[in-house]
Amino acid sequence: MSIDNTPTNAAHAREESFERGMEALTAIDGAAGQKVIDSLADVSPELGHQVVAWAFGEMYVRPGLAPRDRQLVTLGMLTALGGCEPQLDVHINAALNVGLTTDEIVEALLHSAVYCGIPKAVNATFIAKRVFSERGLLQDQAA
Amino acid sequence: MSIDNTPTNAAHAREESFERGMEALTAIDGAAGQKVIDSLADVSPELGHQVVAWAFGEMYVRPGLAPRDRQLVTLGMLTALGGCEPQLDVHINAALNVGLTTDEIVEALLHSAVYCGIPKAVNATFIAKRVFSERGLLQDQAA
Amino acid sequence: MSIDNTPTNAAHAREESFERGMEALTAIDGAAGQKVIDSLADVSPELGHQVVAWAFGEMYVRPGLAPRDRQLVTLGMLTALGGCEPQLDVHINAALNVGLTTDEIVEALLHSAVYCGIPKAVNATFIAKRVFSERGLLQDQAA
Amino acid sequence: MSIDNTPTNAAHAREESFERGMEALTAIDGAAGQKVIDSLADVSPELGHQVVAWAFGEMYVRPGLAPRDRQLVTLGMLTALGGCEPQLDVHINAALNVGLTTDEIVEALLHSAVYCGIPKAVNATFIAKRVFSERGLLQDQAA
Amino acid sequence: MSIDNTPTNAAHAREESFERGMEALTAIDGAAGQKVIDSLADVSPELGHQVVAWAFGEMYVRPGLAPRDRQLVTLGMLTALGGCEPQLDVHINAALNVGLTTDEIVEALLHSAVYCGIPKAVNATFIAKRVFSERGLLQDQAA
Amino acid sequence: MSIDNTPTNAAHAREESFERGMEALTAIDGAAGQKVIDSLADVSPELGHQVVAWAFGEMYVRPGLAPRDRQLVTLGMLTALGGCEPQLDVHINAALNVGLTTDEIVEALLHSAVYCGIPKAVNATFIAKRVFSERGLLQDQAA
Repeated sequence: MSIDNTPTNAAHAREESFERGMEALTAIDGAAGQKVIDSLADVSPELGHQVVAWAFGEMYVRPGLAPRDRQLVTLGMLTALGGCEPQLDVHINAALNVGLTTDEIVEALLHSAVYCGIPKAVNATFIAKRVFSERGLLQDQAA
Repeated sequence: MSIDNTPTNAAHAREESFERGMEALTAIDGAAGQKVIDSLADVSPELGHQVVAWAFGEMYVRPGLAPRDRQLVTLGMLTALGGCEPQLDVHINAALNVGLTTDEIVEALLHSAVYCGIPKAVNATFIAKRVFSERGLLQDQAA
Repeated sequence: MSIDNTPTNAAHAREESFERGMEALTAIDGAAGQKVIDSLADVSPELGHQVVAWAFGEMYVRPGLAPRDRQLVTLGMLTALGGCEPQLDVHINAALNVGLTTDEIVEALLHSAVYCGIPKAVNATFIAKRVFSERGLLQDQAA
Repeated sequence: MSIDNTPTNAAHAREESFERGMEALTAIDGAAGQKVIDSLADVSPELGHQVVAWAFGEMYVRPGLAPRDRQLVTLGMLTALGGCEPQLDVHINAALNVGLTTDEIVEALLHSAVYCGIPKAVNATFIAKRVFSERGLLQDQAA
Repeated sequence: MSIDNTPTNAAHAREESFERGMEALTAIDGAAGQKVIDSLADVSPELGHQVVAWAFGEMYVRPGLAPRDRQLVTLGMLTALGGCEPQLDVHINAALNVGLTTDEIVEALLHSAVYCGIPKAVNATFIAKRVFSERGLLQDQAA
Repeated sequence: MSIDNTPTNAAHAREESFERGMEALTAIDGAAGQKVIDSLADVSPELGHQVVAWAFGEMYVRPGLAPRDRQLVTLGMLTALGGCEPQLDVHINAALNVGLTTDEIVEALLHSAVYCGIPKAVNATFIAKRVFSERGLLQDQAA
């Protein structure tokens, strides 16, 4: 095979994925995504790179599923996994940023009670409450 | 409070929820849902009732989230929980029945690799392969 | 079928389940259960309703298993699930309220080490320590 | 400290725990427990030893919780963990052997739907169905 | 930034990662890895690509941890996750291929009983038994 | 069988296992292990005993796997289980104490992203960051 197998080529591609991922991450998560990357910088810069370049730059940006749909799947997964409160915070924010309403998010977490049980549904819903409150959306929700 | 607190009232409501749920279950899962209920009949008829009357009759039919969106959340949860292969089979069928395409389902399960890890994503994708194959959709998928 | 299929009928049954559940919840959890419902009121009143009306009003009150036995099953489940510390707090309190002794609760959590591993057993036992301490039962336990 | 620190002492205690455990295991699980130990003999005899000597000989035989109560906790844990179908088979048998009725077991697994979600409750209930059927208890259950 | 942002560049890097990953996968898993990729080909070729190009081509080949050490971590993770029997089969084979002995693998799975509980340790050990048996290593183990 | 079946014999063996375990625990975890035992003393002294005498005195000290290798397996398990942050803290310290470098620990947790997904890898890495920081190892890591 005649592909250009130089380190430079791989390094360029690595940088491209990172840039593409950071663009997606910023569009979806605003400052929250960047904060995670920054927090990882002094302990595992490579994990930070993979979050940006692979999770967002390779996977998230694929055209086969709308960002809104990806967030629905993601909310389901994070609720089911348990113990992922920091990620639920990021992704409930992201869900709002890509167009899901507070009502749809609350309904998705209510739906999770059927499949994950009441405790995980309640835990996830309390994260939603905190996010909505921080964004001044709780009154709309309750009204 | 002056509500009609007779057993008959509760029994009627219980029957109504079951009928509403069975209608939803049949619309979404076709024969697969009924088969689960039948299999539970001689060991735990009440669990069968709750699946129909509560999960479908009370929760699934709520208008706040489209059936297609509920399936996206559900696929995410079942993939993350692990060990729910029978339920993934039912709900990948259901996902197709409410309008998700094979491409969207495959993409949702690919997306799950980021949050649940490769093994659970692979296990769920093999269930999708079996369901698609049974429905003659695998060639379309691969084409 | 000739059942009275009016919304009023369903609404009455919904209210009945809620009242029956709230009575059970208050008997078992005292103020703790109400606090969870109140916390959910501005973000997901329907999840609060389901906790009361379904989990307690439909499921918990069934006569087939004594409240004490339900708590033993529940402590096992919450310990195994992991990440359910708030629910363990509520249900260790509930276990005491329905007649399990501190010794039985501690022994059940010790037993969980065999099936869930040491870390989850230790995490659950620290919640028991906090609950016992709040109720002035830790000295009895240690004596 | 003047304890008799010879290997013989430890070896005797190891043998004692094993004998005590095997007695408990046989009383509770009949042939099923022995079968697991035999299956482990050629790959991990030490794991077989620990199951007998520690899980049963040290932990299970403790007087602080009745065998029946231990099985209630265990059914809850195994249902919640997921992917423990072989162990659920052994312990649903054990539950019957120590005096839980089929109705109580079915009710405990129904109760698990509230905390673990419907899929895990259904999966565990199907194991109960198989065990009851093998023991000729399914008709009683359904009658 | 003046990197060569052409699709060709990205496509080349994508191919390079895949080739590097396939080389690693073949060295570690022999035919087993290829079989998983082949099975994914008609349902989710992209998941197959990510397994090879990302999991192996980007992550596994990193020099910071020896292949033998990666397998120890991986055996721990797969045992803890539960429901990952197919992956345990692949990775117990891989562990043998990169130099772990049957005794070390058995000991690692015994160790897992402490952290994951007996059921998951037993389930993983039965997969090891099958793999050892297929490779004619069970007699050595038992001798 | 003619073994000395007196309580004294069992009590001696119990004490021996505890002493052997405490020696191992202190060597590996320093003060952290003792702190957990102390915290359990007033609620579940038997769980504290089992952690020391069984987990460390019986299992950890077995010669079949080097302490360093046991920590690699353990880090994998605790990351995969989720919700075991206190134990990850103890065992990342232990990993450093038995000779794993910060780079190897970070790489093991990066590797976990492939099998457990990004969220659990990130959560575990943040515990590593805290431990490294407390031990003044974070600058070395970042340098």
